[in-house]
Amino acid sequence: MKIYNNPPQNEWEALLQRPTMEVKQLDDIVKGVLDDIRENGDAAVAQYTEQFDKAKLDDFLVSAAEIEAASAQVDDQLKEAIQVAKANIETFHRQQLSTVSIIETMPGVKCWRKSVGIEKVGLYIPGGTAPLFSTVLMLGIPAVIAGCREIVLCSPPNAEGKLDPAIVYTADLVGINKIFKIGGIQAVGAMAIGTESVPKVFKIFGPGNQYVTAAKQMVSREGTAIDMPAGPSEVLVCADDSADPAFVASDLLSQAEHGVDSQVVLVAFDEEMVTRVQAAIEAQLALLPREEIARKALKHSVAIVVNSRSEALELINLYAPEHLILSTTDVESFAEGIVNAGSVFMGNYTPESAGDYASGTNHTLPTNGFAKAYSGVSVDSFVKQITFQQISEEGLKNIGPAIEAMAMAEQLQAHKEAVSIRLASLKS
Amino acid sequence: MKIYNNPPQNEWEALLQRPTMEVKQLDDIVKGVLDDIRENGDAAVAQYTEQFDKAKLDDFLVSAAEIEAASAQVDDQLKEAIQVAKANIETFHRQQLSTVSIIETMPGVKCWRKSVGIEKVGLYIPGGTAPLFSTVLMLGIPAVIAGCREIVLCSPPNAEGKLDPAIVYTADLVGINKIFKIGGIQAVGAMAIGTESVPKVFKIFGPGNQYVTAAKQMVSREGTAIDMPAGPSEVLVCADDSADPAFVASDLLSQAEHGVDSQVVLVAFDEEMVTRVQAAIEAQLALLPREEIARKALKHSVAIVVNSRSEALELINLYAPEHLILSTTDVESFAEGIVNAGSVFMGNYTPESAGDYASGTNHTLPTNGFAKAYSGVSVDSFVKQITFQQISEEGLKNIGPAIEAMAMAEQLQAHKEAVSIRLASLKS
Repeated sequence: MKIYNNPPQNEWEALLQRPTMEVKQLDDIVKGVLDDIRENGDAAVAQYTEQFDKAKLDDFLVSAAEIEAASAQVDDQLKEAIQVAKANIETFHRQQLSTVSIIETMPGVKCWRKSVGIEKVGLYIPGGTAPLFSTVLMLGIPAVIAGCREIVLCSPPNAEGKLDPAIVYTADLVGINKIFKIGGIQAVGAMAIGTESVPKVFKIFGPGNQYVTAAKQMVSREGTAIDMPAGPSEVLVCADDSADPAFVASDLLSQAEHGVDSQVVLVAFDEEMVTRVQAAIEAQLALLPREEIARKALKHSVAIVVNSRSEALELINLYAPEHLILSTTDVESFAEGIVNAGSVFMGNYTPESAGDYASGTNHTLPTNGFAKAYSGVSVDSFVKQITFQQISEEGLKNIGPAIEAMAMAEQLQAHKEAVSIRLASLKS
Repeated sequence: MKIYNNPPQNEWEALLQRPTMEVKQLDDIVKGVLDDIRENGDAAVAQYTEQFDKAKLDDFLVSAAEIEAASAQVDDQLKEAIQVAKANIETFHRQQLSTVSIIETMPGVKCWRKSVGIEKVGLYIPGGTAPLFSTVLMLGIPAVIAGCREIVLCSPPNAEGKLDPAIVYTADLVGINKIFKIGGIQAVGAMAIGTESVPKVFKIFGPGNQYVTAAKQMVSREGTAIDMPAGPSEVLVCADDSADPAFVASDLLSQAEHGVDSQVVLVAFDEEMVTRVQAAIEAQLALLPREEIARKALKHSVAIVVNSRSEALELINLYAPEHLILSTTDVESFAEGIVNAGSVFMGNYTPESAGDYASGTNHTLPTNGFAKAYSGVSVDSFVKQITFQQISEEGLKNIGPAIEAMAMAEQLQAHKEAVSIRLASLKS
């Protein structure tokens, strides 16, 4: 961890520089797979599944029997934990459903918005050593609450052609319609294009490796919406005297263990806190199975000592962290100053892992500074807001002259005539 | 207008095919301009402004004196119309501001979302023969309501180095901070990169020609958010016996006059309505200054006769029109079946031009079928929803075990330890 003691503000941006995202030229590979799926459908998906995942599958759909078997394999304690998380996530996200409210902007001119679930959505859940069933909760629950009619999930099978039982159990629990054993580019392609077995969806969500990311980028240019741009996960912890250095260390480590490209930033108000956090990190690191990954991530992490709370706020808002932990006194008033962050964790007993798993908030958040313009995933991400309007004869008399004047000034006479012809009919 | 009488459903998709968007290879041109701006800032912008807009400018910013002069040039009737529209758009969009509501998902676990305006946004307003001051209202008003701190507007100058007075007047009226006489790729580049005079923004909004569209696409791949993907404007009118053919014709024409690539679709329940609408179109066309444009757009437009309201709904939702006009009986119950549309206009006295200008709804809407996954512009487009959480000691005792179990099952032990170390401190 590099330490910077009161660096001048004009150096902050350089100190907080994220690694340039290596936009590898995967376009040719991705395009090849997509074209093949477009032409050969499931046959192409089967071939890539064998090539990339070493699994030979005739049928990608997880069957009812497989779901039952998976459920039997998940131990009861984990099931209970998943159900606690599900209940909290549902409680929080259900609040995001908007209700219709009709607004009469002028007498006789009624306008409203109606929130409608995106009909078909696709969720991608990465494979690998650890089964990310928590992401199934974070994407599946808002999709169900939004009222999406068809919710498809794809996740890469292991060499035996199976998914992790916890993923299957969770997907079924939240109400996902179809679970497919398909991963990588071919999963994104199958959902964006549609095959004999995989429905074409309108929006694709979820994390993934560089191939998945490149595939999502490409299908988004071709008309399929995606959740948000990708980037490595990151945390910024802001700690004053009231913070517990061991707690701070544990939060930094829980970010660092994600991957060697994880971004970890500590903002403190005196160097002693940094020293104490570093000591705690060393003590805790040795006990972690993912010690090596965490050590590598910490190598490019930074600790910055600032002079004041207002300086800290400026720095945080400049960096726009995905996760922001505030371990400070008067944390409520301090948090008021946050304008750029994905999710904010306030106080000494609010670790990031609460939001990662079970408190109720979503863990799919904007990384890489995207928090300056993007929100995390929510029910909003799974709906469209359609506007409606209904104007009465009286209403058109009230608003018509304004429309006519503006249309003529924009030299769009047919726009004016659509009003004039109606107003004329009302005079007769 | 091509007429299809009860075509089989499996042919609908082909009949409603939109023109393939010609993604011209403008990437090289765009990249050249962006690189030049990155290196040379305002000097590059000045050079391209001279090259593309034939205007020699030392200063791009519209001055206070220019604003005053512009205001004097806009006639009072138009000013009044713009103010009526502004009031309605404000009334409708102000309703979209969300309030904070703290949710206790478990005892001691409080979660909430806070809506924060994107700090810096850029609005692009095209030039050309007609000054699109209505788009200034549609983008500027929600930006102000959202609480965006810096709202920048760019629009191409004419050869005299001036903007249309109505654009300047409207921009100043709604509260835009800085109005720049910059157009095309160089405008998008200046706002995405930042120059000596143009602030770097986090999200860029607004319509434009193929160069602007290509530039927006490129900067969005490099991290600047954009409003939505672009496509030609379109309307679908669904008319039953209760519709007035002359009104329907006027609505189709007000779409057709936009441009030769405008998409115009009529859905009717018998061929007689189509014939009567066509006759009305012919009668009205002759009176339009933009007759030639409208005729060309109508050439590739279609009228489809369907058997039932449920068939009509299926067809509409398949097409997902940007603008949808429902001229039918029981229009409220019919509108209930709409799931894919940008904005819906209900009844015989609700022309599209009402929403284009003044009723209150936004006119920046998803084209090209994007209404299946995207919403139109609203206050939502100018804010981020930041999630917050605050967990008490009691709360962590309640939720901790679930987090620990899930973290261990995902093999992320440091995530678990961030909880365990806190719980241990509470026992001592």
